[in-house]
Amino acid sequence: MPGEFDFIDWIRSQQKPGGPVLLPAGDDMAAMRWRGEDLLLVGVDQVLEGVHFDLSVHSPRMVGRKVMNRNLSDCAAMACLPAGAVATVALPHGTTMEFAKELYLGIREAGEAYDCPMIGGDTAAWDGRLAVTLTILGRSGGIEPITRRGAKAGDLIYVTGPLGGSLHHAGHPELGRHMSFTPPIELARELAGSGRITAMIDISDGLSRDLAHICSQSHVGAVLQAGQIPIHGHALTWSGISGQDALSHALHDGEDHELLLTASAPLLNASLHLIGRTTAEPGIFLESSAGRIPLPAKAWEHRF
Amino acid sequence: MPGEFDFIDWIRSQQKPGGPVLLPAGDDMAAMRWRGEDLLLVGVDQVLEGVHFDLSVHSPRMVGRKVMNRNLSDCAAMACLPAGAVATVALPHGTTMEFAKELYLGIREAGEAYDCPMIGGDTAAWDGRLAVTLTILGRSGGIEPITRRGAKAGDLIYVTGPLGGSLHHAGHPELGRHMSFTPPIELARELAGSGRITAMIDISDGLSRDLAHICSQSHVGAVLQAGQIPIHGHALTWSGISGQDALSHALHDGEDHELLLTASAPLLNASLHLIGRTTAEPGIFLESSAGRIPLPAKAWEHRF
Repeated sequence: MPGEFDFIDWIRSQQKPGGPVLLPAGDDMAAMRWRGEDLLLVGVDQVLEGVHFDLSVHSPRMVGRKVMNRNLSDCAAMACLPAGAVATVALPHGTTMEFAKELYLGIREAGEAYDCPMIGGDTAAWDGRLAVTLTILGRSGGIEPITRRGAKAGDLIYVTGPLGGSLHHAGHPELGRHMSFTPPIELARELAGSGRITAMIDISDGLSRDLAHICSQSHVGAVLQAGQIPIHGHALTWSGISGQDALSHALHDGEDHELLLTASAPLLNASLHLIGRTTAEPGIFLESSAGRIPLPAKAWEHRF
Repeated sequence: MPGEFDFIDWIRSQQKPGGPVLLPAGDDMAAMRWRGEDLLLVGVDQVLEGVHFDLSVHSPRMVGRKVMNRNLSDCAAMACLPAGAVATVALPHGTTMEFAKELYLGIREAGEAYDCPMIGGDTAAWDGRLAVTLTILGRSGGIEPITRRGAKAGDLIYVTGPLGGSLHHAGHPELGRHMSFTPPIELARELAGSGRITAMIDISDGLSRDLAHICSQSHVGAVLQAGQIPIHGHALTWSGISGQDALSHALHDGEDHELLLTASAPLLNASLHLIGRTTAEPGIFLESSAGRIPLPAKAWEHRF
């Protein structure tokens, strides 16, 4: 029966010292030097067995990568640079040391791709299912964080890539990019550097709900152009499975981890798709040749 | 069936803006100003149903207080000041909104007692049991963090209070201070200000194991004086339940959340109990009139 201290010793052996990290994992807390001109950002996200991943399909390394990438996606949404992360794992009794190490390696390799070291964590074992949380620290690095609350009426609404069908499906191994997306941090900072972005969010709950977050916090409404919303090929595949139209999948599925943003003036970037405009009138609408209909926030919400 | 967004809206309504927090909960990440002269410390801890608390005995408010207090105890162990925290909750399906709010209020009120605002978090629902994690940010505030690795041979070993019998027991409502301890942050900073503390840890795994953490990271051994280890009245109560001697409970039970520290010279403080000395020879021993015996690290370890 493996124990937490062997696991923690192994994690400490994997750490690469240096940089701003004064004390890495292994003490009561980690310690970092911080540059006073940098704002400190902090975000946290969790992945739960049976909700965010399925161990009959996903390896522990994929689970580790996902929890880090979800947090890196939050850094992209704020246009900040990741600076370090701490994680917790609640391991079901019966977990092997190999599984625990693979989970850690998944977290670490996803972080290393963005210079985000793991600096601490907490391991526990229980009779429950696997739960992994990750807290990420970000630094503004010369770019003012982009919030959800800065959109003004008349702003342009963009997304950074095609949407829908992100989840996995047993019969379709080509699906499942919710486990393997790439957080667009460089793109976010390039766009934020234009000074034209007024609000930004990463699409995790789904376009319809994440746009509602921006609209409610910015006190604006929005009209989306149905024909301009980029639809992922996976949404078409899902449409064949679900019987729903592909546009609905693009609007409501979630876990796309593309960026949704508003801009005060046109942005020239090959990654961007212009999908609508914000309005002074409240409410979110979908416009097509058939007319304008209200767009409900049907996408993902955790219900207890 | 309550939903996460109603809960998050309620949390946002509970927040008190101001101070160094620029962006509280409600965006992809929270943002704080940070004083460049302050080291940034970060710790994380989790509490799991059936391991760290028992919902048949403990209210959600007690669970919330415990997860914050465990992290504040880590701040005490590093002699830093808490600066802010983020939490995750994995709520079992069927949780009421009232329960979720009580959990949050427990976290918040424990933090407020130490000027530690909640600045963000993540809520999810699942088929699993209740899991709560909290990540705490600390600032050095003019005192160099005290690690586990600075003890030298010949240092004095102190604890800040009597040990043992911290867990609850159904037939003994007077027990259970693992849910209600007070993190000794002020005391830790006062002691650290003396410049004599060489290593410190909070006793969560148990005296025998936490002393082993200091010894292995500091490359020293230790001899404890059996007769000088302060034994909590609750350890005597437990002794009556378990049939083990009370000293064993003081040595191995854990979740005391007193501080264990080493000092290069005597410390005068009414809270402190001198319990032994570190040695150049490796190994941890317990000395009594009957002689010197090895002290195994029998206390708590999570085994998967």
